[in-house]
Amino acid sequence: MFCQTNKELEALVEEARSYTQYGKVADYIPALGKANPTDLSISINYPDGRCVSAGDVQKKFTLQSISKVISLAFVLMDRGSSEVFEHVGMEPTGDPFNSIAKLEKMIPAKPLNPMINAGALVVTHMIKGNSVEDRFKRLLSFIQELANDATISYSEGIAQSEFETADLNRALCYFLKQHNRLDGSVDDLIKLYTKQCAVEMNCLDLAHIGLVFAMNGFDPQTNKQIIPQNVARICKNFMVTCGMYNASGEFAMKIGIPAKSGVAGGIMGATPGRFGIGIFGPSLDEKGNSIAGIQLLEMLSKKYSLSMF
Amino acid sequence: MFCQTNKELEALVEEARSYTQYGKVADYIPALGKANPTDLSISINYPDGRCVSAGDVQKKFTLQSISKVISLAFVLMDRGSSEVFEHVGMEPTGDPFNSIAKLEKMIPAKPLNPMINAGALVVTHMIKGNSVEDRFKRLLSFIQELANDATISYSEGIAQSEFETADLNRALCYFLKQHNRLDGSVDDLIKLYTKQCAVEMNCLDLAHIGLVFAMNGFDPQTNKQIIPQNVARICKNFMVTCGMYNASGEFAMKIGIPAKSGVAGGIMGATPGRFGIGIFGPSLDEKGNSIAGIQLLEMLSKKYSLSMF
Amino acid sequence: MFCQTNKELEALVEEARSYTQYGKVADYIPALGKANPTDLSISINYPDGRCVSAGDVQKKFTLQSISKVISLAFVLMDRGSSEVFEHVGMEPTGDPFNSIAKLEKMIPAKPLNPMINAGALVVTHMIKGNSVEDRFKRLLSFIQELANDATISYSEGIAQSEFETADLNRALCYFLKQHNRLDGSVDDLIKLYTKQCAVEMNCLDLAHIGLVFAMNGFDPQTNKQIIPQNVARICKNFMVTCGMYNASGEFAMKIGIPAKSGVAGGIMGATPGRFGIGIFGPSLDEKGNSIAGIQLLEMLSKKYSLSMF
Amino acid sequence: MFCQTNKELEALVEEARSYTQYGKVADYIPALGKANPTDLSISINYPDGRCVSAGDVQKKFTLQSISKVISLAFVLMDRGSSEVFEHVGMEPTGDPFNSIAKLEKMIPAKPLNPMINAGALVVTHMIKGNSVEDRFKRLLSFIQELANDATISYSEGIAQSEFETADLNRALCYFLKQHNRLDGSVDDLIKLYTKQCAVEMNCLDLAHIGLVFAMNGFDPQTNKQIIPQNVARICKNFMVTCGMYNASGEFAMKIGIPAKSGVAGGIMGATPGRFGIGIFGPSLDEKGNSIAGIQLLEMLSKKYSLSMF
Repeated sequence: MFCQTNKELEALVEEARSYTQYGKVADYIPALGKANPTDLSISINYPDGRCVSAGDVQKKFTLQSISKVISLAFVLMDRGSSEVFEHVGMEPTGDPFNSIAKLEKMIPAKPLNPMINAGALVVTHMIKGNSVEDRFKRLLSFIQELANDATISYSEGIAQSEFETADLNRALCYFLKQHNRLDGSVDDLIKLYTKQCAVEMNCLDLAHIGLVFAMNGFDPQTNKQIIPQNVARICKNFMVTCGMYNASGEFAMKIGIPAKSGVAGGIMGATPGRFGIGIFGPSLDEKGNSIAGIQLLEMLSKKYSLSMF
Repeated sequence: MFCQTNKELEALVEEARSYTQYGKVADYIPALGKANPTDLSISINYPDGRCVSAGDVQKKFTLQSISKVISLAFVLMDRGSSEVFEHVGMEPTGDPFNSIAKLEKMIPAKPLNPMINAGALVVTHMIKGNSVEDRFKRLLSFIQELANDATISYSEGIAQSEFETADLNRALCYFLKQHNRLDGSVDDLIKLYTKQCAVEMNCLDLAHIGLVFAMNGFDPQTNKQIIPQNVARICKNFMVTCGMYNASGEFAMKIGIPAKSGVAGGIMGATPGRFGIGIFGPSLDEKGNSIAGIQLLEMLSKKYSLSMF
Repeated sequence: MFCQTNKELEALVEEARSYTQYGKVADYIPALGKANPTDLSISINYPDGRCVSAGDVQKKFTLQSISKVISLAFVLMDRGSSEVFEHVGMEPTGDPFNSIAKLEKMIPAKPLNPMINAGALVVTHMIKGNSVEDRFKRLLSFIQELANDATISYSEGIAQSEFETADLNRALCYFLKQHNRLDGSVDDLIKLYTKQCAVEMNCLDLAHIGLVFAMNGFDPQTNKQIIPQNVARICKNFMVTCGMYNASGEFAMKIGIPAKSGVAGGIMGATPGRFGIGIFGPSLDEKGNSIAGIQLLEMLSKKYSLSMF
Repeated sequence: MFCQTNKELEALVEEARSYTQYGKVADYIPALGKANPTDLSISINYPDGRCVSAGDVQKKFTLQSISKVISLAFVLMDRGSSEVFEHVGMEPTGDPFNSIAKLEKMIPAKPLNPMINAGALVVTHMIKGNSVEDRFKRLLSFIQELANDATISYSEGIAQSEFETADLNRALCYFLKQHNRLDGSVDDLIKLYTKQCAVEMNCLDLAHIGLVFAMNGFDPQTNKQIIPQNVARICKNFMVTCGMYNASGEFAMKIGIPAKSGVAGGIMGATPGRFGIGIFGPSLDEKGNSIAGIQLLEMLSKKYSLSMF
């Protein structure tokens, strides 16, 4: 049986917190650099409504790359998987079985998968709506529904900062535009994308979203099928194969939980059929993942045999 | 409840067999080219000893790349995971979160993972023993134990043919040797590797090996823990992320079963905690996977909800 | 002795013109697509003021990539070679002597050389001035001086068309900006760059510019050293190693004249110490060079032993 | 007028020798590591038979990569340029004019040019003859004729050492074999290639070979056209564009003499129509070129205006 009490979880959090000293907070924009590196909080959300948590669970953080999974789910519902995967690949790796190297698909006109920036930009580009505002409003409503929290909003300051420093993403967009993967205004897309990345919530919200993915799109607390089953499955699959940047393989091997991290320090976990996990710990390892958050998940996975493999 | 009778399975095999016409058998060595493209057989092996099967289940085929998972398990037992992953990576993809392309690790001195040829060669190189013969004998015994079939052997003709046409693998070996990932005789390594690829069995044997992986290394029929749990998990993880060449992502998404394929037409599946699957269908799609075998697995996965995601 | 009469040259032009049928005009913007594919004109400009020519020498065309050599000369004069080559490389190829492939420098933060688009953008970015208009005016004056023709201007329509379709160049700019090779407005740079590419002249003008490069920066007709000797040498060097896109090696081998081509069909040649050549022939081969222009140069080089090698 | 007396040259050599301290000798095989890093010698060979020299001109060194130009000339004579360039490219760089990076041709089945190892191996593979011994004997005779010195031989020790450490070249060969650019025994080819690289001479010999290239294949001292003119031109072209490893562009710009270097410290120069240069200075810069040798050539080029650009 899995972790039942806040007390049990608090002990693990305190143990994991010591790892925060070996990482550092993201600082490519000033707002992220102000995070407190020793912060660490976790919430576990069960289908029956129980919620076990530890740490300062009210602290808010921006989703950053965690939003890639959510926008993917949203766009799969908006467009269907055939249309989506016509424009973005589904492979963690592009190696044909006998290649001496990954030559063929290196800067592919078709991004390898929706978890790399190029792929996520193509996905966000497909969000339907009449304007940036309208499209973002639709996505935000979806996020509020997933988290069952209508107060969720985004950080204008962080969105603005990221908009101003998004040159690499602009490069990707213009490259994709040249290859007819994007049309319309690049600035509009970057505006929408940086807002999406700047959506703010706490680990309780994130655990609830994780629960919905864990339950194949069904929210057992509101009794609603928010995401179709196959869409939720597709998302969990990408969480396993490329959810933790280029530590995804090691994470899958050691921990074995579908998860997605963001550079603000969030990790969303979705243990199939069992529960959702929300973690916030802004001190990052060199791969860009919450260093204490991963430690905490490894302790939980070992203690309670959570690996899906 | 999953597929219970041969009859049920036979109907699905007949339906899937029609897809064999859209693929073609491997022909880079003459022996493989002689396979009958319309062949299709499957066996499902349950923990309680039951075995449901369809097609000409006695037909033998060589493991080819399926052997990569088995040699990985063997070497992880011989050497421990720290030593193994010092020499081969564990990532399906090498993308750092903000790279515009996969530049840094293209022909890495450290192969990305054990499922690409470079990684598999490094793994096989680590099989302990005093000679090629000795090392192969040890591996073969392990395979016989996994399949619970002491009659399993290898095709000398196919091993020899592959040895003679292994120039690309030789290139990889010398490159790895230059970077101190390999030492000793390249020809010895190619000899060992081509024998490993040429191990022959039928789909009943393969399903039994799949069952052992599915049960985390435990053979419920002999009551033996053949592979340690964590080793079996590592192997299933690689099966999910890179077991089906560069169709692994699509396979995981549509089918969701840890699986490994080989160019002779075999597919080994390992549904965690439930059963093992062995398939033989030599007509391949353009990615190198059994075209009807994948079709069959998709039908089974949809019908019986087998996806682990 | 080299070609002395228009008549001699006209015969060669007629012979070369037949090759125009094997190429096609650039059509990535409509204006270029309207060129007459059978056009072919040439002018040869000698230090003593003589000028031999053939074809419709009054036909104007835009410089396109030919402008890369001219802006390089201009910026080398504005900034000095140390500053320029701090931001752009001087190598035709990035291969270290023992590399198995060109891995290390593939999308380098520092563009390989000033003849590839990334490098040319970095060069144009270094043109001094207070505004796009001011910087372009300075460059245009320089071009007028080089051609000894104060009437030279640019095609607003072509500049505008290229500005609108410059997504790949925008991608390069944002990528370079991310790596601190560029600052300021990307749109301003693209505006300046597309104007530079849209400067229009005829083959008489171009031959005169070629003559100045051939005479190491000295204009024997006005008795002015327009470009310092070492700057002219640097430019001719890049013309030899990378002036003809990725046919530069073959061109150097067969023809052996420093030359630079543009996709509007122009070729500027600079035979060291002897004469300048201007060619216009808009039918391009698959490498982007004037197909009949190259043919014509090959005939001239063979007939009059023009190779510098 | 160019350098006329040994005394004049000796002063320059002494000045350049001080640069040897900033480099180091090649040490990937023990024999090369034993070279005296402060050695520096030069010989200039004029068409009229005069020879100006300085330093210990009797010191012998192995050709290493300098042999690539010579074997190229030999094979162009054996096979003709069409056959040769069917199997090896002629481009210093593989960039199509609009590529964002050199993606397409990275490990091309067709090596980019004959100066990179892959290309040189393909060239040496084309040397005609019935056996390794026979083919090497033919090449050696050619080298003796070029140097007008029948005593030239090769270092068995160095050839053997290089044979034993040639894993990277073996990797290239097997890769090329897989792509049908090579056939036959890889070991035989490596044997022939390492012998070719181990041919030994002093700077007087090397200057004479340089003279033959400078005079377009004609030896003015023996009155023989040893190499056809167009073959000599092709070779000088490659010396300009890729003769000095990945410092070729900088070398061409600063010095402007067709030249080829080797990691034993040799540099062969061929000033078109004027003279040949042989240099030996085993202390190398980080690109693999003789550090003092380059310094010496730069002083000579500036003092006597030797640049061909």
